[in-house]
This record gives sequence, C-alpha cells and structure tokens, in this order.
Amino acid sequence: MEKKVLVEISARHIHLCEADVEALFGKGYKLTPKKNLSQPGQFACEEKVSVVGTRSEMKMSILGPVRKASQVELALTDARTIGVDALIRESGHIDGTNGCKLVGPKGEITLEKGVIAAKRHIHLTPEDADKFGVKDNEIVNVKIETPERTTTYGDVVIRVRSDFAAAMHIDTDEGNAAGITNTAFGEIIK
Amino acid sequence: MEKKVLVEISARHIHLCEADVEALFGKGYKLTPKKNLSQPGQFACEEKVSVVGTRSEMKMSILGPVRKASQVELALTDARTIGVDALIRESGHIDGTNGCKLVGPKGEITLEKGVIAAKRHIHLTPEDADKFGVKDNEIVNVKIETPERTTTYGDVVIRVRSDFAAAMHIDTDEGNAAGITNTAFGEIIK
Repeated sequence: MEKKVLVEISARHIHLCEADVEALFGKGYKLTPKKNLSQPGQFACEEKVSVVGTRSEMKMSILGPVRKASQVELALTDARTIGVDALIRESGHIDGTNGCKLVGPKGEITLEKGVIAAKRHIHLTPEDADKFGVKDNEIVNVKIETPERTTTYGDVVIRVRSDFAAAMHIDTDEGNAAGITNTAFGEIIK
Repeated sequence: MEKKVLVEISARHIHLCEADVEALFGKGYKLTPKKNLSQPGQFACEEKVSVVGTRSEMKMSILGPVRKASQVELALTDARTIGVDALIRESGHIDGTNGCKLVGPKGEITLEKGVIAAKRHIHLTPEDADKFGVKDNEIVNVKIETPERTTTYGDVVIRVRSDFAAAMHIDTDEGNAAGITNTAFGEIIK
C-alpha cells in the first residue's frame, strides 16, 4: 500500500500563554490571526516577538491560539545563530528544557523553559493512522525523495488526534538537508 | 563487512583564487594558515571575508590553499538568511551557478558564479574505496545513527583520490538535521 504523507516545513516560531501575551503586548491584548495553518484551529499571527540569545536575536512569528505554556520552536541552526540551547522535544514536552528572553513592543520576559527543536512528527487522524497502519506514539522512518537530496528520516513520532490533518512536520534544517523546495511527500517505512 | 566512515560537518566557507585574494586583501597578499583540516594540504585561514546577499551578509572563513576559481560554500539555511541563491553542486563544479558580492579589508568583488551548497560526499583513497567496495563517482546512501535524529542520506557521491583522507562531508543543515553533536560515523549502504 502506498503510504505517502504531505511534508510541511515549520519555520521558527513561538507559542505564547495568555499571561505572556499580555506581558509582551499589553494588558488585555488579543493576538491577530493572519493565516490559517494546515492543522485545524491553528493560525499564524500578525504579531512577532524577538527571541534573544547570548549572540544575537531573531524576530519570530507567533502561532495561535494561546497555549497553557509558552514555547519557542526553532531549528538547531537558528539556536546556534542566536545563542540559545535547544533540546529536541515533542511540542508541549518542555520540562527540563532551557529558557530565553523574549522582547515584545510593550515588555520583555524571561522564559524559564520552553526552547526546543521539534522532534520530527506526523499528525494523523485515527482514520489516517488505520490507513497507514501506524499507532499514536509509534516511531517510524520516512523516506523523502527529492531530485538532489533524497533523505530517510528516522525517529519520526506518530501523533494521532481526531482534530489533526495528515501532515509530517520537519524544521528548516531538515527541509534544507532533504533539498525540499516545493511540495514534498514522505513514504512511511516501518 | 563494517562500512563506517567518519562524518565531518563543513561550516560555511570560501575558497579564493589568487587574483581574488589580492582584490580583497591587497596586492601580493598571502593567506595565513590557522588550522589544518582533515584533508591533506587543506587549511583554514586567519582571514575572513564578508559574503553579501540581498538580505544581509555573513563573515566566512577562507579555506586554503588558493584555487583556480573562487567558490562560496554554504548551507541552504545560510543562503536564505543572507539572500543568495545556492545550487547543490560538487565542489569545483560551478558552471551555471549564481554569484554574489564579497567584501574584504582592502576591496570588494562580485563573483559571477561560485555560490553552492555542497553535494554531500565521501573522500576516500583508492585503498579505502576498495575496502568499502565503492568506486569514484558512485552514488551511495549513508546511515548516520544518533540518539535522537537517526538519518539516512541518499545522493552521497564517492570521491576517490590518493591524497584524500577518509571522511564524509555534510553541511550544517545536514549535521543539525541528523542531530550530530559529537563525533559521528556513517554506514555506507549501497
């Protein structure tokens, strides 16, 4: 059976909790949705925040809606450029990770934790997971064929939820390492 | 048979021809070796040059000795950051590639071509090639096992020369995508 899934490249971005939105943008501030993302209910915002490391800083887009905890997701190349220490983690699994400073138009905060390089993963609905023959939390390999840099990524975690849309998410390092320039698909190999 | 080769990560760098060294550093200038590289006769220099793109610029180390043609080697993430268009090419294969501006302490030049993201490759001596059962210009896959981001790179070209030392060279995007933090080895898979 053909087991190909859309591959999407996530550029560096931030998720914020409501308290941190207010600390950075002012009391009562609400984020402004700019563009819907492939995962239902998720959107990129108009607002940006500066992520400050020991070497330099980078402006990053905020992805909404607000979450329970703030989190900076970046590629390891980004982390080295600005001088922050990112562990490879699934989104939301930020215990034990490092923090950094965030600067917004109305204030700045220091995150105690939350700086991660996302563990590569595939979003699937329960129906997709059945179709692909995989289970939630299963680790698979995914082969991405491109004209010049065909790559097979191991350590890809399957994430199943009824409100997901089928898509593999990798970061910009991983997208560039695989030479992805246009729409790409990955073949799930168990 | 075990077919593992040392994996080295090449950070962005420049090779210069003698005329371009003089244009950037002054007439009669000779580059100052700072550190020998794994490939015999190759060295990093004390001098740096600014590579200027449409968005920003980056200082890059010069690798010696001087070559017949100047060449900028960077990761695709770097290329996007500074705003230059890098094709994936083997070192030295720069016909048809794009150029960029270089700025040194004594002058600046515009390269007509030479901006590349290096095609991943393995340097081997003829004896190594026999041992690994591969030939010059052969394309192989290489599996790099790491604790969190095991990756198999396809489209890896074998380069055989008697003055090479056995090493796979990948760029910083590829190193980060594979989660390489320390010494890594790759298994050649045909």
